[in-house]
Amino acid sequence: MQVMTNGNITIVKDGNVTTPIGFTAGGVHCGIKRKRLDLGYVYSDVPATTAGVYTTNLFQAAPLVVTQKSIEIDQKIQAILVNSGNANACTGDQGLQDAYTMQTEFAKILGIKDHYVAVTSTGVIGVPLPMEKIKEGIQQILQEEHSGADLFQKAILTTDTGIKNIAVQLEIDGKIISIGGAAKGSGMIHPNMATMLGFITTDAKIDYSELWDALKQITNQTFNMISVDGDSSTNDMVLVMANGKAENKTLTKEHPSWSLFIEGLKVVSESLAKQIARDGEGATKLIEVNVAGAENVEGARAIGKAIISSNLVKTAIYGTDPNWGRIVCAVGYSGVLIDPNRVSVTIGPYQVVEKGLPSQMDEAEVKKYLEQENIHIYVDLNQGEAAATAWGCDLSYDYVKINASYRT
Amino acid sequence: MQVMTNGNITIVKDGNVTTPIGFTAGGVHCGIKRKRLDLGYVYSDVPATTAGVYTTNLFQAAPLVVTQKSIEIDQKIQAILVNSGNANACTGDQGLQDAYTMQTEFAKILGIKDHYVAVTSTGVIGVPLPMEKIKEGIQQILQEEHSGADLFQKAILTTDTGIKNIAVQLEIDGKIISIGGAAKGSGMIHPNMATMLGFITTDAKIDYSELWDALKQITNQTFNMISVDGDSSTNDMVLVMANGKAENKTLTKEHPSWSLFIEGLKVVSESLAKQIARDGEGATKLIEVNVAGAENVEGARAIGKAIISSNLVKTAIYGTDPNWGRIVCAVGYSGVLIDPNRVSVTIGPYQVVEKGLPSQMDEAEVKKYLEQENIHIYVDLNQGEAAATAWGCDLSYDYVKINASYRT
Repeated sequence: MQVMTNGNITIVKDGNVTTPIGFTAGGVHCGIKRKRLDLGYVYSDVPATTAGVYTTNLFQAAPLVVTQKSIEIDQKIQAILVNSGNANACTGDQGLQDAYTMQTEFAKILGIKDHYVAVTSTGVIGVPLPMEKIKEGIQQILQEEHSGADLFQKAILTTDTGIKNIAVQLEIDGKIISIGGAAKGSGMIHPNMATMLGFITTDAKIDYSELWDALKQITNQTFNMISVDGDSSTNDMVLVMANGKAENKTLTKEHPSWSLFIEGLKVVSESLAKQIARDGEGATKLIEVNVAGAENVEGARAIGKAIISSNLVKTAIYGTDPNWGRIVCAVGYSGVLIDPNRVSVTIGPYQVVEKGLPSQMDEAEVKKYLEQENIHIYVDLNQGEAAATAWGCDLSYDYVKINASYRT
Repeated sequence: MQVMTNGNITIVKDGNVTTPIGFTAGGVHCGIKRKRLDLGYVYSDVPATTAGVYTTNLFQAAPLVVTQKSIEIDQKIQAILVNSGNANACTGDQGLQDAYTMQTEFAKILGIKDHYVAVTSTGVIGVPLPMEKIKEGIQQILQEEHSGADLFQKAILTTDTGIKNIAVQLEIDGKIISIGGAAKGSGMIHPNMATMLGFITTDAKIDYSELWDALKQITNQTFNMISVDGDSSTNDMVLVMANGKAENKTLTKEHPSWSLFIEGLKVVSESLAKQIARDGEGATKLIEVNVAGAENVEGARAIGKAIISSNLVKTAIYGTDPNWGRIVCAVGYSGVLIDPNRVSVTIGPYQVVEKGLPSQMDEAEVKKYLEQENIHIYVDLNQGEAAATAWGCDLSYDYVKINASYRT
């Protein structure tokens, strides 16, 4: 089952949220969408310590309110119920009531406490949830034919063109620890936490405060470093559930394998973040921007995000145009105080700017490089030691097509 | 010549930068672009008190450096020389030298001091100016056949689809005061001063510090409130030249007609700003967003800009989709602390959100409204007295087309 290794971390072939011990998942079509699966769940045999990060959008959707309050009770949940096709956002008291109904109905059928069910929704804003369909779906969702991580992964998608999953394994205290993940996200994606739905499961044993710290640290390096279109959604969240079934000694920052666990969590989060960026609405390419030589990491991140968020950079890359002027322009308006005369830029292996001035470049060669699917841009500010990486995608005709007609 | 009136301010039919007394203008094709005009000037019979605002991009192009330094000497200039097709940005010492050469060559032929010539450039970044062509153009530009505001207006364009001009007249101290303007701008437009080239002329008599204060105040309400694509250019500036030829008593804040003059300047600036937004790359519609009920004007502006800058709002309007969820979403991530439950949104005459909840609306009717060319969105935050207006455009296939192949 193990096929790729990354030092002490093994990437599991076809790994997913059910790779860790004690997790199951499934999905069903309940009728919110016309044909595709639209209701999914993840379940842990035992209550799992759970940490979450949530959108910073002030119009926070009802299920986020319910999920946050539920996790606050004893920092544990045992199941996640997700619907796609309807965001249950801007739906007022009715929306809040509907989110609670989703929670209690699923808790009832699972035979667990209400507050051990996290609920979340993604889709159109401002339309009440079709609760009869969802209740019906909940009645059927645990049936054997609806079980499987693949069904869960499909049930959470909206305009995504494909599922997003990964799992890694690593050894701690002589035990195999697994960390699995699934995500959805294609539009309304911007680095402002939280910009999509991400679900991470692990059988590691870890206390809440450490899990929360780890999630927050990793999120700032991964999920918060992607952008598709600069719009931060009302609904997005990342949850990480740790059920302890691997029976390692409880992970703390003093545990000798703490950094290995963090690295494993980072591999999962970064992979999901990149899968989301690559599947950006209408995208044909994944763009990775490495910023080095910054005075501090906040500055490096802000510059990486400015480049990855620039419509002009994104359209140039779609058009395989080595228009580096748009890259330095984005550096210049990022809000970070830098000396333009020290900035160097490389597109793939080709230096295009050296210390603020154009390099000699073979434009045809750089254009050829840009025809690839994975584009790397390297910006060296040459004014410090800090670095950051951001991921995004190109901006194509299809982005306009998808978003000019998504709802109607 | 006067056809439209706006209270005490008359909009002059076909008015432009040469409507005020003592200003002439012209344009020529010197060969930077293949066919179209690419070198233009504005000239005042006498040195004119001049104030400018400049891009906040740290990669500031060479001509902006030269122009700012020149105006600093005695706050006057007599001529502006503009080339299009090449931005003279990221061109290092050579670029700076070229900008100075443009200045001195034009000053020589005009017979005025070097520092009385402002220079500015717009176009591709990182390519040295073709100085032989520009010098040749300067030799010819004052010939009678190249004179006329229409030629100047054309010579400053890049991806613009049309010229942008206006002039107004008003009476101060029994004298007719004219204020004229021209602008270019289509891409790399974002509310972060300065986002395009704007040239305003007036025959009013006014001292530098008052002129500068007026320009700054007006710019924040007009040029800084438009967005096409969120990218702030390296080159943009707005200059206002006041040559005093109308012979009014010198305008100060104590002058009884001060507010009338400010209003006239605002009409010119707002008109140019809206013409730029409407001519955004690929745009099919002008979008005006009015934000009211804010706690302060900064908050109102930030929310207006967030809506006008949202790719998702812009594509929805292109697709005539009354997807108000994207509007409230942009309000929610604008960074302004507001109470979502008080926010109401109107699209044209149709209320779509009332105090955070969807209104009953006839979707077909709102869709029909969105088929118009001028779209109004009205957001009432219901939490204060401050208001602001922002302008933008929709995001169409043609934006992608233009920008995926602009340079190559």
